[in-house]
Amino acid sequence: MSTTPLPPDAEAILRGDRRALGKGLTCAEAMDDEALALLDALWGSTGRARRIGITGPPGVGKSTLASGVIRAHRALGRSVGVLAVDPSSPLTGGALLGDRHRMGAEAGDPNVFLRSFGSRGSTGGLSRAAPFALDLLDAAGFDVVLVETAGVGQTEIEVATSADSVAVVLSPESGDAVQAMKAGLIEIADVLCVNKADREGAEAMAEALEGMLDRAPPAPWRPPVVRTRALEDATALFEALEAHGTWLLEGGRIEERRRRGLRGRLRTLVHALLAERLLAGRDALLDARAGEAAGKRRSLLDAARSTVEEILR
Amino acid sequence: MSTTPLPPDAEAILRGDRRALGKGLTCAEAMDDEALALLDALWGSTGRARRIGITGPPGVGKSTLASGVIRAHRALGRSVGVLAVDPSSPLTGGALLGDRHRMGAEAGDPNVFLRSFGSRGSTGGLSRAAPFALDLLDAAGFDVVLVETAGVGQTEIEVATSADSVAVVLSPESGDAVQAMKAGLIEIADVLCVNKADREGAEAMAEALEGMLDRAPPAPWRPPVVRTRALEDATALFEALEAHGTWLLEGGRIEERRRRGLRGRLRTLVHALLAERLLAGRDALLDARAGEAAGKRRSLLDAARSTVEEILR
Repeated sequence: MSTTPLPPDAEAILRGDRRALGKGLTCAEAMDDEALALLDALWGSTGRARRIGITGPPGVGKSTLASGVIRAHRALGRSVGVLAVDPSSPLTGGALLGDRHRMGAEAGDPNVFLRSFGSRGSTGGLSRAAPFALDLLDAAGFDVVLVETAGVGQTEIEVATSADSVAVVLSPESGDAVQAMKAGLIEIADVLCVNKADREGAEAMAEALEGMLDRAPPAPWRPPVVRTRALEDATALFEALEAHGTWLLEGGRIEERRRRGLRGRLRTLVHALLAERLLAGRDALLDARAGEAAGKRRSLLDAARSTVEEILR
Repeated sequence: MSTTPLPPDAEAILRGDRRALGKGLTCAEAMDDEALALLDALWGSTGRARRIGITGPPGVGKSTLASGVIRAHRALGRSVGVLAVDPSSPLTGGALLGDRHRMGAEAGDPNVFLRSFGSRGSTGGLSRAAPFALDLLDAAGFDVVLVETAGVGQTEIEVATSADSVAVVLSPESGDAVQAMKAGLIEIADVLCVNKADREGAEAMAEALEGMLDRAPPAPWRPPVVRTRALEDATALFEALEAHGTWLLEGGRIEERRRRGLRGRLRTLVHALLAERLLAGRDALLDARAGEAAGKRRSLLDAARSTVEEILR
């Protein structure tokens, strides 16, 4: 924890200043030194918000569902901070517009704050930046912090695991559903949601998911399989997420879950800091070894190993 | 370069044994120790194939175009090895089927080899695995090695830059076109392809791309903007890629380009090897520091920095 007094930008975020929060999120997206300083200053003020992740392949109707979940929280008087890690999310107008364009009932509600992150950045950059953005929204005092990601890749899994409760949304129309299962998305789900439940194949998909859960090793929490219709409402999803949240609060489960998530984040951060420290000023060495590999004087692996030896010598 | 005799699996791949190649590609996808040993053994036999990358957002018709480009190479008697880093590519039946199902005129042609990679793996894992798969296809003796990736993320960019010539395909219907530009996909293009050129907005998109190129700083190669219709043929794309290939072969340009690509791959490999070496056996340390960050006794950044100090001490 920083022992120096809070920098003005961190203080403004804690006060609920939306402009300062927006600026902080821009730093978070870049994950630059300023972002790290802000993370450091605000760390002690995080951990109060309930963090929800909604993920799944593109086109399954996640944004509409997320919108319904947000409204349900608002109806209970809870403020909601939203991060959409999805360039095409209609929830935020899409990162590509780069604006604060909002849709639906959230528009103009001062207790809902929406922000999107694009998909650009260094490899794994988003996996580091998104959890930090959730920290900022948390420190800014929102009761609920919701992150929406779209995809079936590793980034989605890493971002989602920094939430307390994760809903994985699938639809019977999505050709990516099998892929989502293969990619390990099912394993991170606290709630499984079959959206477009009125379409053909929805019930079969829900039953297949139940079957998978039947065959899985017994776990303290069995993810419920909920059916939703995007055009109707998201009540079933909201309620399942609430039930998981209540369960987490019993017997210190939430602390254990967050500690596990932090272990992963710490490992990623240590990786990045180690590489930064050890590769600084080593461009000439890397260039020389790459030239040797290109000229077939060494294999690429040999070049990498000898570079590592030289760095650690 | 390995000084020991070639292991039998490496020798079989060099002989053109397709079963051995398939097994090698499975190792490559996992990027395990066996894969690294194979890369080491085959390194001296890579660099002969012409490497082509075709990328762009999902749904723009890349696979159909790739199929056309493959046929054009076959018509000139060239053998083609294909890697589809796209779980939904119809070119390979999709990684999710996990089979060798083929489509179109390529089916049954012994001089075309198709393989798909899923999107699962450690963060950045695919960025390391895919270039190595191209090395294997190269060492196996294919005249042309083609990689298709779908998306507008960093993985696509890293995979594509391990090709000699990269075509970025966009379509007027794709809402991701602006996103593709923002994500830096345009910057890596050697050929820009507006597919579905008969649809509304195609000409405007092509002109917008030309305008972007006009405003870009002068470069030794200006990417041509070609118009294709997926249902017709891919001749214009094939010819533009051929022209770029010919240009690369003049005055050692291809060597410089490959050296640049290797620098990036070497850096990624060194990163991974460093982290593996330095974090081995450090689980207890990471757990302790994560616990301190979770308990707010330190910030996450402070925990990471102190872990790095302890590792490097």
